[in-house]
Amino acid sequence: MNYKMVLKTVGRLLWAEAGFLLFPLFVSLYYKENLFHIYLIVMGLLLGVGAVMNLPKPKNRTLYAREGFVIVSLSWILLSFFGALPFVFSGEIPSVIDAMFEVVSGFTTTGATILTDIEAMSKSLLFWRAFTHWLGGMGIIVFVLAFLPQKDMQSMHIMRAEVPGPSVGKLVSKTTVTARILYIMYGVLTVAEMIALLCCDMPLFDSVTTAFATAGTGGFSVMNDSIAAYNSLAIEIVITIFLILFGVNFNLYYLMIMKQFKRAFKSEELWSYLGIIAASTIMITLNIMPLVGSLGTALRQSGFQVVSIITTAGFGTVDLGAWPALSQFIIVLLMFCGACTGSTGGGLKVGRIIILIKTFIRELRRAVNPRRIKCIKLDGAVIDKEITSTTSAYFVVYMFLIAISTFLIAFDNFDMTAAVTSTISCMNNIGPGLSNTGMIGHFADFSNFSKIVLTADMLIGRLEIFPMIILFLPSTWKKSA
Amino acid sequence: MNYKMVLKTVGRLLWAEAGFLLFPLFVSLYYKENLFHIYLIVMGLLLGVGAVMNLPKPKNRTLYAREGFVIVSLSWILLSFFGALPFVFSGEIPSVIDAMFEVVSGFTTTGATILTDIEAMSKSLLFWRAFTHWLGGMGIIVFVLAFLPQKDMQSMHIMRAEVPGPSVGKLVSKTTVTARILYIMYGVLTVAEMIALLCCDMPLFDSVTTAFATAGTGGFSVMNDSIAAYNSLAIEIVITIFLILFGVNFNLYYLMIMKQFKRAFKSEELWSYLGIIAASTIMITLNIMPLVGSLGTALRQSGFQVVSIITTAGFGTVDLGAWPALSQFIIVLLMFCGACTGSTGGGLKVGRIIILIKTFIRELRRAVNPRRIKCIKLDGAVIDKEITSTTSAYFVVYMFLIAISTFLIAFDNFDMTAAVTSTISCMNNIGPGLSNTGMIGHFADFSNFSKIVLTADMLIGRLEIFPMIILFLPSTWKKSA
Repeated sequence: MNYKMVLKTVGRLLWAEAGFLLFPLFVSLYYKENLFHIYLIVMGLLLGVGAVMNLPKPKNRTLYAREGFVIVSLSWILLSFFGALPFVFSGEIPSVIDAMFEVVSGFTTTGATILTDIEAMSKSLLFWRAFTHWLGGMGIIVFVLAFLPQKDMQSMHIMRAEVPGPSVGKLVSKTTVTARILYIMYGVLTVAEMIALLCCDMPLFDSVTTAFATAGTGGFSVMNDSIAAYNSLAIEIVITIFLILFGVNFNLYYLMIMKQFKRAFKSEELWSYLGIIAASTIMITLNIMPLVGSLGTALRQSGFQVVSIITTAGFGTVDLGAWPALSQFIIVLLMFCGACTGSTGGGLKVGRIIILIKTFIRELRRAVNPRRIKCIKLDGAVIDKEITSTTSAYFVVYMFLIAISTFLIAFDNFDMTAAVTSTISCMNNIGPGLSNTGMIGHFADFSNFSKIVLTADMLIGRLEIFPMIILFLPSTWKKSA
Repeated sequence: MNYKMVLKTVGRLLWAEAGFLLFPLFVSLYYKENLFHIYLIVMGLLLGVGAVMNLPKPKNRTLYAREGFVIVSLSWILLSFFGALPFVFSGEIPSVIDAMFEVVSGFTTTGATILTDIEAMSKSLLFWRAFTHWLGGMGIIVFVLAFLPQKDMQSMHIMRAEVPGPSVGKLVSKTTVTARILYIMYGVLTVAEMIALLCCDMPLFDSVTTAFATAGTGGFSVMNDSIAAYNSLAIEIVITIFLILFGVNFNLYYLMIMKQFKRAFKSEELWSYLGIIAASTIMITLNIMPLVGSLGTALRQSGFQVVSIITTAGFGTVDLGAWPALSQFIIVLLMFCGACTGSTGGGLKVGRIIILIKTFIRELRRAVNPRRIKCIKLDGAVIDKEITSTTSAYFVVYMFLIAISTFLIAFDNFDMTAAVTSTISCMNNIGPGLSNTGMIGHFADFSNFSKIVLTADMLIGRLEIFPMIILFLPSTWKKSA
């Protein structure tokens, strides 16, 4: 383990976070909130700690996969910790565990909250909360790679550890350029949504924060009743459309910009993703129609919730706990499914589901005819055998972690549905869970122990398991350099 | 597909079932029930249909893996169908779907029942119901292989398709001799339990049927209140001990008979199995103690239920629905876990769980150090890479089928917990499920559609997925011989 390079890199990421805090600082000035000094203190801390971490001069600048994992997991923990300090220092979330839960929920774009009265918070803190969604969606470190001069960073290993999905497609040969292209497309889409929301008469502050939360498929809202507070069909439609867009693999947008439409529209993942959305919406609409009375209302509720859950945003307009068992179960399946590889959504990813289903079919064929070896194809190309077996193994690990986490949450002695769905929701970075008594909108009632477990789940889910676990393996910390 | 050989083999198995029906026939004579003619009619049907299936003379007598799967799945369906007829003809379970559910539940050693008043049934039918557990536990076809002259049968492929677990260990080089040894050990243990139960003052009829249900780890009882009806600590202890014994890989008993104690006690699966039982019992005891009042009662309830669930018997003494969330979740985990490979228990099997956990650890190591290729060891020997990847794929397929089945059950619109746990319970051949409103002891309230789905689940779970699915693949039925 090249400790010095790890420290140096993480230290520089802390400096970058000091820069990000300038945004809420300006917001607090604009709204004349008395929080100016708090942001300055946290920025000072970040700069100081970052400087100390930059003191040792590494002789060897090489970074391997292991260092990539450690940098990513360590910096996500530290960035969340320092990002939580403004909430703690301002007294608006006095408990460090609660504040850490909230900010991890932000960066991981989960959107689960421990707040019971969101509207009582300071504007600048609400802004920072939404901004963490935006930064976390495409990857905080990817952002730094894209826009800061980083000739020291061997960036590919870091990007691989931070960007979700079974494989990382580099758009162009240089990683930093890839990162920059990704962030520019991301920014343009975010601004487009902001303008669309303004056109629907949403206030400016709400438009900005909601656009951030949609872009990262996070789900934090500035209203206690989430999107239901606006009671506007137009706003729901805009958010639904942009959620679908942010749930698509960004590589496809790049292909479209390059005018390679044929290649972009050949993506099996894209069509499966859209197909799942359509099928689930139709089924839930039919299932809840007797409950809500009219086809229009049923379609409106089901369409918004299906998209909100599959993209792992978790915005709410209705109480899912009141839906019939069939609709609830479809929602749980969508929680596992998640959006596309290389999008800002969480979950297993549609791409993985496709590989898993194709593995299923191959296993059947192999059982009938053991000698015929079949390979798995995606978008017409053969998938490396390594990826298919890793994907199955990933699924195994993922289910084990859900079981372990649910087990730990069950100590809180809510009902079993609550323990299971809270875990699934946090692990897949969605936000709300279900319980026998309705929807779990906020997580304030959980014990501190459960909050810590769920915080870990969110990080594990966002970083796709391995970086987080590797950070805590003793063998990672054996001397080698 | 060698149709003629498949027909011939299945036909002979129907003849064997006619022989099995002699037992309930004698019971009905003993109890002077008016069911004599019904068993004769069904036996006549079995002999007739079996004879018709034996009419075509196969030229080619070779059986491959595919034929093995088809023979096993087809004969399990037909044996269950004809086995259900005595219930239908006697009018005691008038619906064919219900009777089929009950008998499939018997043969697959699930123990889920649609009966609401078990004690009102005729003794001979209750005997047949328990006897299906005993036959299904070690494998109906394995029984036929063991004791009937079958020079025609290429038995290995059939045994591989019927015996549970990731791999089939042949005890001795000849399959028929292996089958005979297995059944003799199985019979001796069953008789031992019967005697032990008689010593605890259980009536003879109850002792015989309970011993059958324990041996197959099935869970059918002749009492409405299951084992709670006897209210006897001694009986519970006897059943617990024998359940643990029947949940062990029978190969280990063979090794012990051969005085290879060292090899037998080296089994990682055995120790993991016992360890899981001990750990779960302790945790549930502590968790339910405040609820039941005393340490003694808590230990008695938790020990019995843990063993009853992990061995997938599903005997009940208490209402699991009243337990706290933590205990309920441990029970759900045990449902997935199941007993040992090569035992009469269902579920994923402890052996598979060990392979999955080791796969998990290997994946972690590979993430840290991609170039070092690690192999997985069990009991000191390296496991074939094929088995580890098949095991992961098996798990994937298994979880998918649970999701699909739960989805179909959810149409019945009970609560979600009911839909999920009924599926898990049937797929793992356990018996009872859980719901928000308590334990699901009988399945009478489900719709016919759900009953058919759950019947399929039981068969899929018992035969470990592939045989059942292969039977319904169109490609299986393409012409080749």
